[in-house]
Amino acid sequence: MKSFDTVAIVGVGLIGGSIGLALRERGLAKNVVGIGRTQATLRTARRLGAVTQTTVDLPKGVKEAELVVLCTPVGRIVEQVRQIARHAPEGTLITDAGSTKLSIVEALDGPLDRGCRFLGSHPMAGGETVGPTGATADLFVGKVVVMTPTPSTQAQDFDRIEQFWSDLGAVVVQMTAEQHDRAVGLTSHLPHAVAVALAASVPEEYFRLVGTGMRGTSRLASGGPEIWTDIFLENQENVLAAMEQFGVQLTRLVAAIRRKDGAALLEILTEAKARRDAFASRSSDR
Amino acid sequence: MKSFDTVAIVGVGLIGGSIGLALRERGLAKNVVGIGRTQATLRTARRLGAVTQTTVDLPKGVKEAELVVLCTPVGRIVEQVRQIARHAPEGTLITDAGSTKLSIVEALDGPLDRGCRFLGSHPMAGGETVGPTGATADLFVGKVVVMTPTPSTQAQDFDRIEQFWSDLGAVVVQMTAEQHDRAVGLTSHLPHAVAVALAASVPEEYFRLVGTGMRGTSRLASGGPEIWTDIFLENQENVLAAMEQFGVQLTRLVAAIRRKDGAALLEILTEAKARRDAFASRSSDR
Repeated sequence: MKSFDTVAIVGVGLIGGSIGLALRERGLAKNVVGIGRTQATLRTARRLGAVTQTTVDLPKGVKEAELVVLCTPVGRIVEQVRQIARHAPEGTLITDAGSTKLSIVEALDGPLDRGCRFLGSHPMAGGETVGPTGATADLFVGKVVVMTPTPSTQAQDFDRIEQFWSDLGAVVVQMTAEQHDRAVGLTSHLPHAVAVALAASVPEEYFRLVGTGMRGTSRLASGGPEIWTDIFLENQENVLAAMEQFGVQLTRLVAAIRRKDGAALLEILTEAKARRDAFASRSSDR
Repeated sequence: MKSFDTVAIVGVGLIGGSIGLALRERGLAKNVVGIGRTQATLRTARRLGAVTQTTVDLPKGVKEAELVVLCTPVGRIVEQVRQIARHAPEGTLITDAGSTKLSIVEALDGPLDRGCRFLGSHPMAGGETVGPTGATADLFVGKVVVMTPTPSTQAQDFDRIEQFWSDLGAVVVQMTAEQHDRAVGLTSHLPHAVAVALAASVPEEYFRLVGTGMRGTSRLASGGPEIWTDIFLENQENVLAAMEQFGVQLTRLVAAIRRKDGAALLEILTEAKARRDAFASRSSDR
């Protein structure tokens, strides 16, 4: 465990707010600067104790940061990192929490202005909550954080960021940005797409008959529309591939129901249960 | 609140066990007879205090019942009700907790043997848990129970069963069996089908990258395969119609992602969020 003098967090919503809380509760940073677009969110983050200082001015906010963590929508990360590199101290490390990695990591590979370096991260944590109010210091405990180094990533930079996430309680997994985007297209973006289509299917007259099942299965559809528009656009190919794979399984199920094939149905449901039981017990996030 | 001397519960899993617990904790029945196929489940139900007596012999179990509640897979209910009517006391009321209603209610409409009468019920409660261990006395509190009377249903029978569910804390909603099956095809059976297809789409190599989103969205796939095979077969037409409606929404989403149409995507996601937020706050089951 190595602590920082100053960490800057750009975007103090659920993820950024939780990073701030964890850094402060674990004594990992003296100063945590929260950088955001609206005073209201920044005030909330400060009130919750997630940050020690706040500003809406990105250049000013990163002026003394040893580490900058971007928790902003994926469509904005590349531009913000370039701006940060022009204003942060020499050699500042920059990482992110974006749900897609390839386009970001490709655009920011190699040394940036003033010797700053960027490494891609993706903490597999969160939920449908938006904003800092849902933030908790233990959000990352036991959760997987994927890091996506490139051939030009320096080993000591990787180690430093890996240590940072480990210090928040996370389990770091390393893969290429391509591998990451393909995997999350299926494990994270597909369920979101499915939840959205499901929520869109419920007519108003049936709202009172919605029970636990529909509520849970559609929960992700309550997530932030802007964030997810960005993610679907950024990871277009992998999301479409995952949706196609899902479509194949859905068609198989429709076919068995259509021909009233009880044996085939039982087999599909038994297989799906075994698979779901297996990944629910093995996945990092209970 | 009117209490019973003896209520028989056929099938003491999550629903049956919870009915037993609620009856006993609220002092609504002196004797609760648990009827099941395996001694192990019956023993668990007795140990949990959900039933006072148990038997694997259906005729024997209903011999003194004023009310019989069937909590067995929908494919078995019609036959079991007919058998119960041959062995229960004159005029015994019989209801069920089956997730589909039309075929059951049609088959059992009108007076049965020995003046027994059947009324269809569907408590919209439950989850992915199977077996009595997850049973709780307050499972039905604030939940909707749909009752599906027919023209031949007697008013005092309806009132008695309505009182029974109200006494367990539920909100009774009345509709025809056709209306019920169409509605739950969408609100309950569709999310199950979607969760199954989603779970089936996750390759083993990605299990460790499964997070909160996939876990929650696929949760229903861990439900009992036999029960759900029955339900999909029983409610075939409505399930297929609901899956088609879902397919339309999914295709709309795929199309917007394929043509990288950010404006259309944002609109779809914003609409789905509004819809989901609305039914999640209005539905009976938080």
